Amino acid sequence: MNVTVAEAAALLKKADDILILSHRRPDGDTSGCAGALCRGLQQLGKNAYVLQNPEITKRYAGLIVPCYPPAGFQANMLVTVDVADTNMLTGNAEAWAEQIDLVIDHHRSNPGFGASNLIRPTAGGCGEIVYDVLMAMGVQLTADIARCIYVAVSTDTGCFKFSNTVPHTLRVAAACLEAGVDGGEINRALFEVKSWPRFEMERIIFDTMEFVHDRKIALATLRRADIDRTGADMDDLDSIASLTRQIEGVQVGITLTENKDGSVKASVRTTKEVDASVICRKCGGGGHLRAGGASFPAGVSLQQARARLLEAAESVYRKSGMEAS
Amino acid sequence: MNVTVAEAAALLKKADDILILSHRRPDGDTSGCAGALCRGLQQLGKNAYVLQNPEITKRYAGLIVPCYPPAGFQANMLVTVDVADTNMLTGNAEAWAEQIDLVIDHHRSNPGFGASNLIRPTAGGCGEIVYDVLMAMGVQLTADIARCIYVAVSTDTGCFKFSNTVPHTLRVAAACLEAGVDGGEINRALFEVKSWPRFEMERIIFDTMEFVHDRKIALATLRRADIDRTGADMDDLDSIASLTRQIEGVQVGITLTENKDGSVKASVRTTKEVDASVICRKCGGGGHLRAGGASFPAGVSLQQARARLLEAAESVYRKSGMEAS
Repeated sequence: MNVTVAEAAALLKKADDILILSHRRPDGDTSGCAGALCRGLQQLGKNAYVLQNPEITKRYAGLIVPCYPPAGFQANMLVTVDVADTNMLTGNAEAWAEQIDLVIDHHRSNPGFGASNLIRPTAGGCGEIVYDVLMAMGVQLTADIARCIYVAVSTDTGCFKFSNTVPHTLRVAAACLEAGVDGGEINRALFEVKSWPRFEMERIIFDTMEFVHDRKIALATLRRADIDRTGADMDDLDSIASLTRQIEGVQVGITLTENKDGSVKASVRTTKEVDASVICRKCGGGGHLRAGGASFPAGVSLQQARARLLEAAESVYRKSGMEAS
Repeated sequence: MNVTVAEAAALLKKADDILILSHRRPDGDTSGCAGALCRGLQQLGKNAYVLQNPEITKRYAGLIVPCYPPAGFQANMLVTVDVADTNMLTGNAEAWAEQIDLVIDHHRSNPGFGASNLIRPTAGGCGEIVYDVLMAMGVQLTADIARCIYVAVSTDTGCFKFSNTVPHTLRVAAACLEAGVDGGEINRALFEVKSWPRFEMERIIFDTMEFVHDRKIALATLRRADIDRTGADMDDLDSIASLTRQIEGVQVGITLTENKDGSVKASVRTTKEVDASVICRKCGGGGHLRAGGASFPAGVSLQQARARLLEAAESVYRKSGMEAS
């Protein structure tokens, strides 16, 4: 059943012993939503916690780790935030896939896997919807809660830069600043400061990037030896695939990453003229209009993966009719 | 005399034949403010134009060039936007320095050089103030005007990333999106796409950046031969000095640029622990807390400038007491 903000707020207000679930490969949006909703419910006097996320990284840990439940906590209501589908539940929540009481999300593809579903695909970040629910419950926007909401909406919109930013995103962020969030410091840490491993990886990408097809296609390769040498972790590699597409005239940016197990991950980013998901489907993957991915099992070399991707990209690029432009 | 938004709006409403002045080395804020104010006044049926800015670059030309006055236009009211002081007037406006009727600005240091002065130092971009004045005059926020305002506030706040972003900045931007601005496309062009010369310059900076003093000080050098080889222009070098400071742990970032005439420009960027203006004053320059600059005449070599800057930076850094942290 689809529910409104007011209905979702009413469901939460009458519930107690609430457990909030975030998604695999947790980002700022799911972590911020979970942390904000949990703190808001606790402010109303409820037992509310965030299920441990086994993949949480240091970047977002502060948002949800303080909200983990005490031993023996028994949930009476399960809420997911920013979880697009049950296959995005973390391993420790998989058993509950059929028992989710409330889904709060902004993914267009969300099938509505909860008993109640509050899904708003036009929201830049799921944090905007959680903010609305908190306000509808009469929660006071403390600096702690505002910080979670701010990180949620800013990380999912590239700090309000991407086209998914809507007026409500900006107004929610404005309310967070008024609640005491130091946007400048948060953004510096999230969007500006490069860790040493990240700096080294960017240097390698810049130095090794290939340009083909009249510089319309850019290809970067992250070799395992380089990743290991720099000590880069998941936080350091976050959104590194977008670097290729930042160069003037590049319409397809491909980043190949050699995984620890020898498999190769391909990330494809495109400008709006070329469909990334079509390129990736030709290589056994999938994705969205401007961002897609594919995987090659161990045994497929970087050179082979490179050839497959370039062939797919050139073919899709030609068919997009951009050639003559 | 200091005036309120309502008073500034009243002054403009009763005036006609208005000429708007932007500042030297025009950025998105001054250009966007000038373009928005001019279009808004024209919407009200007034003769209003923007004085030609001889230094306008291609990045911001679309905002103001269509507003340049026809030959023979005689102004009855002079308005400056985002002009911090009379020494920032363009050469073709210098003669009018004592005759400015209305100053609209957000620089704290503005002495109030107009007959009437609307100065709000807390505004992230001067565009927020121009927006308020337009609304007070009853101007309809067309997509054209909104685009100028959006560029003004987004460029001055690093796309809402910097600490000067205030709630009003975000709400003004929200109104601009509602008026039909394609924020995603504008931001991609302004903040994400790297021109080929820019890409090449960044590659050179990454490859040649030096780290000293336990990696707390970073130094990048832009040699004239490299700049000329890549074909980089002013737009391409815009804010390139901030790259040094983006690296984890770097508290002082120094960028030396070899000018065409053989002089050397030093740009210093710091995190909040170290005062950039103090470092620059030791080298004959000046600036703000986190951003400063100095110049060395032709004859001073890059090596000599480098030594002067490093000595100043190390001395200030030591005195800041950060050494032990």
